[in-house]
Amino acid sequence: MSRFASIADLRAACLDLPSGYSASAEEVARREAVLTKPPRSLGRLEDMVAWLARWQGRAPPRLDRIEVLVFAGNHGVTAQGVSAYPAEVTAQMVKNFAAGGAAINQLARVAQASLRVIPLSLDHPTADITLASAMDEQAFLTAVAHGYDAVSPHADLICLGEMGIGNTTAAAAMAAALFGGGGRRWAGHGTGVDEHGLARKRAVIDKALMHHVHVLGDPLAIAAALGGRELAAILGATLAARRQSVPVLLDGFVSTAAAAPLKKLNAPALDHALAGHVSAEAGHRLLLSELGLAPLLDLGMRLGEGSGAALAVMVLRAALACHTGMATFAEANVSDRG
Amino acid sequence: MSRFASIADLRAACLDLPSGYSASAEEVARREAVLTKPPRSLGRLEDMVAWLARWQGRAPPRLDRIEVLVFAGNHGVTAQGVSAYPAEVTAQMVKNFAAGGAAINQLARVAQASLRVIPLSLDHPTADITLASAMDEQAFLTAVAHGYDAVSPHADLICLGEMGIGNTTAAAAMAAALFGGGGRRWAGHGTGVDEHGLARKRAVIDKALMHHVHVLGDPLAIAAALGGRELAAILGATLAARRQSVPVLLDGFVSTAAAAPLKKLNAPALDHALAGHVSAEAGHRLLLSELGLAPLLDLGMRLGEGSGAALAVMVLRAALACHTGMATFAEANVSDRG
Repeated sequence: MSRFASIADLRAACLDLPSGYSASAEEVARREAVLTKPPRSLGRLEDMVAWLARWQGRAPPRLDRIEVLVFAGNHGVTAQGVSAYPAEVTAQMVKNFAAGGAAINQLARVAQASLRVIPLSLDHPTADITLASAMDEQAFLTAVAHGYDAVSPHADLICLGEMGIGNTTAAAAMAAALFGGGGRRWAGHGTGVDEHGLARKRAVIDKALMHHVHVLGDPLAIAAALGGRELAAILGATLAARRQSVPVLLDGFVSTAAAAPLKKLNAPALDHALAGHVSAEAGHRLLLSELGLAPLLDLGMRLGEGSGAALAVMVLRAALACHTGMATFAEANVSDRG
Repeated sequence: MSRFASIADLRAACLDLPSGYSASAEEVARREAVLTKPPRSLGRLEDMVAWLARWQGRAPPRLDRIEVLVFAGNHGVTAQGVSAYPAEVTAQMVKNFAAGGAAINQLARVAQASLRVIPLSLDHPTADITLASAMDEQAFLTAVAHGYDAVSPHADLICLGEMGIGNTTAAAAMAAALFGGGGRRWAGHGTGVDEHGLARKRAVIDKALMHHVHVLGDPLAIAAALGGRELAAILGATLAARRQSVPVLLDGFVSTAAAAPLKKLNAPALDHALAGHVSAEAGHRLLLSELGLAPLLDLGMRLGEGSGAALAVMVLRAALACHTGMATFAEANVSDRG
């Protein structure tokens, strides 16, 4: 049996979340105020350290053990011609991850993070969302549980990425179902479809929304009907992290769309998550705005794999190094404000 | 005798600049196109590697030797009450840098960059710019030469930062003189003056512009009359780097204003420089826009010391790691676009 016996069981878990450690965040803020710099002059770096402390429940926080989790899945909707690459690329890229040849391998190494790639039934793509539910309840709950169980309670931070040819179509369909609008509002070029491909992708999303109109009021049913296994796993991992005091860096459009149902179900459910970056994929900036997430980086990336989240780890490391390593005004004999 | 015998001599050097190595940049772009990712999906990371290659004259470029240079100076204009901190803090912070207690010490360590701090006649502040030229020609050329000589031709990248109580007033006056507008357009809160202090700072800038109206047509004369020793040194270092094939990361408002006269003199003179970040200091976003520079990071920092540039080094390292470490489609047996 899966970790969650039913969608009702999963929903109950999503509604029962710890609220973070204010005392740890306040301890960080008190130290920031006496370090040798004008107050607040490290800007968001100061906020990041307080955020880490709040969700780790520890001041100072730590970044000794960072895990990048990349979930991979295949999508029946690729039959509709929504991607610039053939579906077999998902499995080929999983091999590339294992061999160390992908972007995320290099980025995880520079970030001093460990990388785990978790392929989810690649030989069994989800159903074509224009014709059927991507997953039945059991398949959805199994994928959520895979993500949930991938999170170590000993991690200091996790980065959540994905690989799945066709999954920007699934993500756009989910975003549309959760926040309104159709293919025109949410579809982008993904891995690089041309204008004809983009028009087709928009139409596919609209057709899927019509087919699944009966689930549009239920965020978890939306994830099962329109998402994919790797998206469901990211939802599960985000939930597990919250319940185990592990802060989360989300990655791009797909990763963010995957976690979005949690926020729709329970407004503070993504407070332990930061957006590592805003992707160049069309819908991401809009989706972050709908979720109230301010991305750390904006560098025109649109690769997925957790790449934007892993890059943002460097910023968190720098922020923490300032917090723990700087001298106070008193220690350094520097005059404070007149 | 200084490296530059006269301002005319310095101007001649600013007008005689190498134009970069297109072949190295093109070699980088050819490799990026066959790495296992959709074309251009690493966005600005790909551009950064090509930029490093162009200005190092080497493909792939290297980041083995990165130097953060922090120039420090004192400013007579502090007598006008333009800063939230007393002027002695400049020297106190130089000691803090030496002891390893400042933000830039932590950031340089995380970036694996060496840090050099170069105090410039701290016991002899520049003149109050509302009353006189900040520096006479000889003092200006000496400071420029200090910066020029601080750049090693063996560096793979330099980050240019500063420390100087009062220097956002000097930087704002320079920006106003170079690009138009007065104190209202360019002054910000600096280290944290209140609204009264900001009003005073704006008036001081306007008074300085009136006093030096005769130099407003000459970018180098502006730097001598309204700037400061640490700003002149940054100008010299930026110039030396260009002439010695060393790419530059500029830091915040003061660092950018210091280099700005080069661009005003010679339009492509800052092509070897990237803006590490956009500061929260009021005039920086506008100044970058005037210079056509797109910042890499936007994190609400406003500390100076080279902090934003050092943080951006992490992004360059990540970009280079992807470029050199990733497998090609052929190497990884991944199918390319259909």
